[in-house]
Amino acid sequence: MTTKHKAGYYKGSKSFTLDAAETVSPGAGEVAIKVAYCGICGTDMHVFHGNMDARVGHNRVLGHEMSGTVAALGDGVDGFSVGQKVTVRPLSHCGKCPACLAGHEHICHNLKFLGLDTDGAMQEVWTVPAFTVHTLPDDMPMDHAALVEPVAVACHDVRLSELTKGEDVVVIGGGPIGMLVALVARDAGGKVIVSEVNPNRLAIAGALGFATINPVEQDLSAEVLSATNGKGADVVFEVSGTQKGVDAMTAVAATRARIVMVAIHATKPQIDLFQFFWRELQLIGARVYEPVDYEKAIALVASGAMSADTIITDISPLSEIQGAFESLDTNPTAMKSLIKVS
Amino acid sequence: MTTKHKAGYYKGSKSFTLDAAETVSPGAGEVAIKVAYCGICGTDMHVFHGNMDARVGHNRVLGHEMSGTVAALGDGVDGFSVGQKVTVRPLSHCGKCPACLAGHEHICHNLKFLGLDTDGAMQEVWTVPAFTVHTLPDDMPMDHAALVEPVAVACHDVRLSELTKGEDVVVIGGGPIGMLVALVARDAGGKVIVSEVNPNRLAIAGALGFATINPVEQDLSAEVLSATNGKGADVVFEVSGTQKGVDAMTAVAATRARIVMVAIHATKPQIDLFQFFWRELQLIGARVYEPVDYEKAIALVASGAMSADTIITDISPLSEIQGAFESLDTNPTAMKSLIKVS
Ligand SMILES: [Zn+2]
Ligand SMILES: [Zn+2]
Ligand SMILES: [Zn+2]
Ligand SMILES: [Zn+2]
Repeated sequence: MTTKHKAGYYKGSKSFTLDAAETVSPGAGEVAIKVAYCGICGTDMHVFHGNMDARVGHNRVLGHEMSGTVAALGDGVDGFSVGQKVTVRPLSHCGKCPACLAGHEHICHNLKFLGLDTDGAMQEVWTVPAFTVHTLPDDMPMDHAALVEPVAVACHDVRLSELTKGEDVVVIGGGPIGMLVALVARDAGGKVIVSEVNPNRLAIAGALGFATINPVEQDLSAEVLSATNGKGADVVFEVSGTQKGVDAMTAVAATRARIVMVAIHATKPQIDLFQFFWRELQLIGARVYEPVDYEKAIALVASGAMSADTIITDISPLSEIQGAFESLDTNPTAMKSLIKVS
Repeated sequence: MTTKHKAGYYKGSKSFTLDAAETVSPGAGEVAIKVAYCGICGTDMHVFHGNMDARVGHNRVLGHEMSGTVAALGDGVDGFSVGQKVTVRPLSHCGKCPACLAGHEHICHNLKFLGLDTDGAMQEVWTVPAFTVHTLPDDMPMDHAALVEPVAVACHDVRLSELTKGEDVVVIGGGPIGMLVALVARDAGGKVIVSEVNPNRLAIAGALGFATINPVEQDLSAEVLSATNGKGADVVFEVSGTQKGVDAMTAVAATRARIVMVAIHATKPQIDLFQFFWRELQLIGARVYEPVDYEKAIALVASGAMSADTIITDISPLSEIQGAFESLDTNPTAMKSLIKVS
């Protein structure tokens, strides 16, 4: 007897189809998860736009920002019970490369990203290696829990910044990741200013209680210097991925500031290296997350500090996956869109 | 009664004149030093070329890489005795700016650099604030002691890199500072490769026992990867100040490598920020030194680890200051030139 479940397949050229996937029992060391919600990530949008076809192909189930409950356990898996709320840290490492050997498995040279290099969570049942599964508190709302993955990105960024209580923080770029970075930084005691050009995002940042600057209308570095008595920001998160953001990140930085490179820069921007020398700035690259960041993210989502109901602006059923992606392309008020999978 | 001493004055347009300076008694909190040797720094060469006239003027005594003996003590100065061997950490800070208040006095926003913003050590008697004076071991040769300042730069660079024993190091640029960085990094347990294009400097690096690569003739990143079993360099020092050096610094870096920005980049080079994100690289700006770096530098020069007799390639008397600067401009075999002041 084979059972089947619904899955959304990316078929190339901005199109998804819903199809029945065969539900296989989890293998040794695997966990099958009944998916509740799955967020749409910026990376998923890149796939939708056809920019990652060489990597993902034309028959891929996307999705890696998910929540769900344990459906079945493979041989040798313990520590989980059927029905338990879980989420997945969607990274599979090789264990043999220099990064893995140095203990940096999350940036393994041969890293597989579940939901891109393998099928992901935009299907009713998702089967993953048990080592990627994190348990959630029983009372965590499942839509909120779908934020754990992007919150873990923000937790990693803030942890690597070594932000301490009372420090001045500028977040350059107030999209979903920038906004979560701002929330995590505030939770860590930072005094946070969000720089963003999109009025809808500025409004959300304002509603979340952040000081905001629109660098098109105001002189960002002058405002930051004035807000910090001439000192500048102790910690800067570059989340914009633009040349203007790279210009701003050194301009707003205090002496000895730490600048965290969160954004993906596809081209090589020009950078004011003289300021790195002159003011002993530090640039810190930060990518995905480690298990400790997931545990922190789960605690922060549980605490309410992530304002999940403000961050989650749209929820669509799996049957409307095509429309959900299309409207993210056009809807200037969206922050985080979720797919309600089952 | 006024006494006078000989001093070399920069008069603009690549010219020095020797003149008699009035020897004033040290004021309260000051120390007068009989200068033994003074090294010629890259910054001094910039002054010589007329690039810093707006800052230094046309009647300036240069020099900040010096050794000497205490000649006289001003009121309120203790901890020194006349005749004692000393060197000077040529930084004077304001004590009030955000950098000073945060404890980073060496990168004070209003930093005065002795020998540029004030008269320096290319004169027989140099009077400086007592807080800038470090004592030297009695048996330290005074020509070697003139290397303490540039060695302290290297100690600061290596300290900020957090280099640990056994790590792979690439130094991009084998001039005087690059070579001292390589020596200090080796002393700290690093396995050091020096990348340099000048054959004379390559020969000196080879004579000092370093693995060398000429990136014009060899593929630098391929060589570094091959020398490190595909891992890359754990620590990179960018001392070249060139776009090619900036390209190389990310290309040779291991996952999670620390790249120390030692060079002064007058223009804004393009930088591979994607690699910072992807491999979680860190860029660390490093400028001058702190007292702890001076103490380390004194110990290293005393230990012989700095190979002072190889690094010091030329010594000229103060009377030949003009020729000493001119020959540094033209002499491709020079590493560090000293002026024997008295
Ligand atoms: Zn994502
Ligand atoms: Zn690996
Ligand atoms: Zn110097
Ligand atoms: Zn200051």
